[in-house]
Amino acid sequence: MSARTRQEPRELLEAARTGDRSALARLISLVEQGGDVARDVGRLTFPLAGSAYAAGITGPTGSGKSTLTERLIAQAREEGSEVAILAVDPSSPFSGGAFLGDRVRMQSHATDHGVFIRSMATRGHLGGLALATPEAIRVLDAAGFPWVLVETVGVGQVEIEVAGAADTTLVVVPPGSGDAVQASKAGLLEAADIFVVNKADRPGAAETRRDLEFMLHLSAPDEGWTPPIISTVASTGEGIDDLWTAVASHRDFLAESGLLERRRTARLAEEVRGIVRHRLEDRALDRASGAEFDSLLNDVVDRRLDPYEAAAKLLEG
Amino acid sequence: MSARTRQEPRELLEAARTGDRSALARLISLVEQGGDVARDVGRLTFPLAGSAYAAGITGPTGSGKSTLTERLIAQAREEGSEVAILAVDPSSPFSGGAFLGDRVRMQSHATDHGVFIRSMATRGHLGGLALATPEAIRVLDAAGFPWVLVETVGVGQVEIEVAGAADTTLVVVPPGSGDAVQASKAGLLEAADIFVVNKADRPGAAETRRDLEFMLHLSAPDEGWTPPIISTVASTGEGIDDLWTAVASHRDFLAESGLLERRRTARLAEEVRGIVRHRLEDRALDRASGAEFDSLLNDVVDRRLDPYEAAAKLLEG
Repeated sequence: MSARTRQEPRELLEAARTGDRSALARLISLVEQGGDVARDVGRLTFPLAGSAYAAGITGPTGSGKSTLTERLIAQAREEGSEVAILAVDPSSPFSGGAFLGDRVRMQSHATDHGVFIRSMATRGHLGGLALATPEAIRVLDAAGFPWVLVETVGVGQVEIEVAGAADTTLVVVPPGSGDAVQASKAGLLEAADIFVVNKADRPGAAETRRDLEFMLHLSAPDEGWTPPIISTVASTGEGIDDLWTAVASHRDFLAESGLLERRRTARLAEEVRGIVRHRLEDRALDRASGAEFDSLLNDVVDRRLDPYEAAAKLLEG
Repeated sequence: MSARTRQEPRELLEAARTGDRSALARLISLVEQGGDVARDVGRLTFPLAGSAYAAGITGPTGSGKSTLTERLIAQAREEGSEVAILAVDPSSPFSGGAFLGDRVRMQSHATDHGVFIRSMATRGHLGGLALATPEAIRVLDAAGFPWVLVETVGVGQVEIEVAGAADTTLVVVPPGSGDAVQASKAGLLEAADIFVVNKADRPGAAETRRDLEFMLHLSAPDEGWTPPIISTVASTGEGIDDLWTAVASHRDFLAESGLLERRRTARLAEEVRGIVRHRLEDRALDRASGAEFDSLLNDVVDRRLDPYEAAAKLLEG
């Protein structure tokens, strides 16, 4: 790698910190891309980060997350805060595409320099989105955004991990019989700091709310915080004030209880573990290829060796 | 571990091979449990396996998979084949519970000694269900079942991996607008050897079929096989003959093209890689704990070290 490209992240970061949005977008692209350049970006942004507050917004397709996010952007802007939105789609290997529709819808903020919207997927990043997301948040943090909203699509394990990179996690549940139960099965109940029953003017909203209350009632309160259930109609703006207040309450609770620092420390520990795990996985993949592997695999196919014995031999070698 | 318990898997396997179903159930429990005993079971069954044909049945909740599985059991029995069913629920850490309802429904086969139904979750098994499933299939294979049906609940990544342990994968899609698209987003399109539009008497079945055809049309045929789309009404038995014929056709195609061996070899290679990966993960977890880790984490929290530098130090140490 030439000295010039090595230099680039530093210059980009300087520009991003003075408000250059295309430099900022380029930095996020470098994070997505992975490899040495992403590491350079991480090395530069990490010491500068730690001031932004990140809220994650997750929930199934059709729950109205994007419209809700748009409303939360407006709330942050009313307070005079700049806000960055990271829209993450674990199901897509491409950045941009999946969220094109959202970005078009978010054009209401397109001319507002205080709003930065970026969708993210992963190309080469080690560990995929679960590791790329905290790095991208740190880029936005280092660029000076006091608020970062992380919106994810879908309700799988990766989505929950991605949402878990935030300080406050909002789980959006659409009204409808069984949707609350589905959310619970997907592990969203444990992930939620705040529940949002969006589209609350639709049939089934009261039942969904009742289901969530019942499930919360069954689970023990986590570290002194019982997730509130906020009803919203994002399309009209109904309930958005309440939701914003709930986010602020959760933020205050975390700060006053000391949980904010504890949770951030736990997330960093988890991130270090994740990196160690992926580096070892890379080594594993190196081992599980090549001539030695082919020869062992032959023995397995011929049933002279079972898969566990073959693995043990690879790990010895 | 005492000599007696070391002996146990061998005795159980001998009993299972002469038709002792409770010995067979106990062997699957040992596989679920993981650890040294599971390894003993694997070492014994691996050389004996390779004759059974495994079909995976996957699809979203509500697609009628269980009723469909029941019908396929009846087809196998009509041919005079014994059949084992492995019902796998990745979302549940407990075995048995989640599938209790299904097992009650499957009581039509309860008195038939030629049918063995077992639900499986994972307790201690290294690598979870993705690694436990092929081992459980080998137990059933070694016990002499010519057919093993692997039914999974849900459509996440793990479910697809589990279904991928089979020779022929059936993806069941319920009729309804968007369901085919959802299946595609979940990666089921790539996993399917055969599509089943079940509940084909319900509104929306024709559209779902059309959506699937369209999506198949967009994707290049995989190694000379275009997945057929079979319409069924499992509750009445409609279309089950066609489905069973499609499974047989796919089996013939795999055998004649040489793909059966190639795919089985690829699966074994992937299994060996998975074991190597999980063993290394265990080592990583060992490193990412203890006094050295705590001290490095402190440096990360104080932003003197970034997470990647901390991981590098752990991997050196």
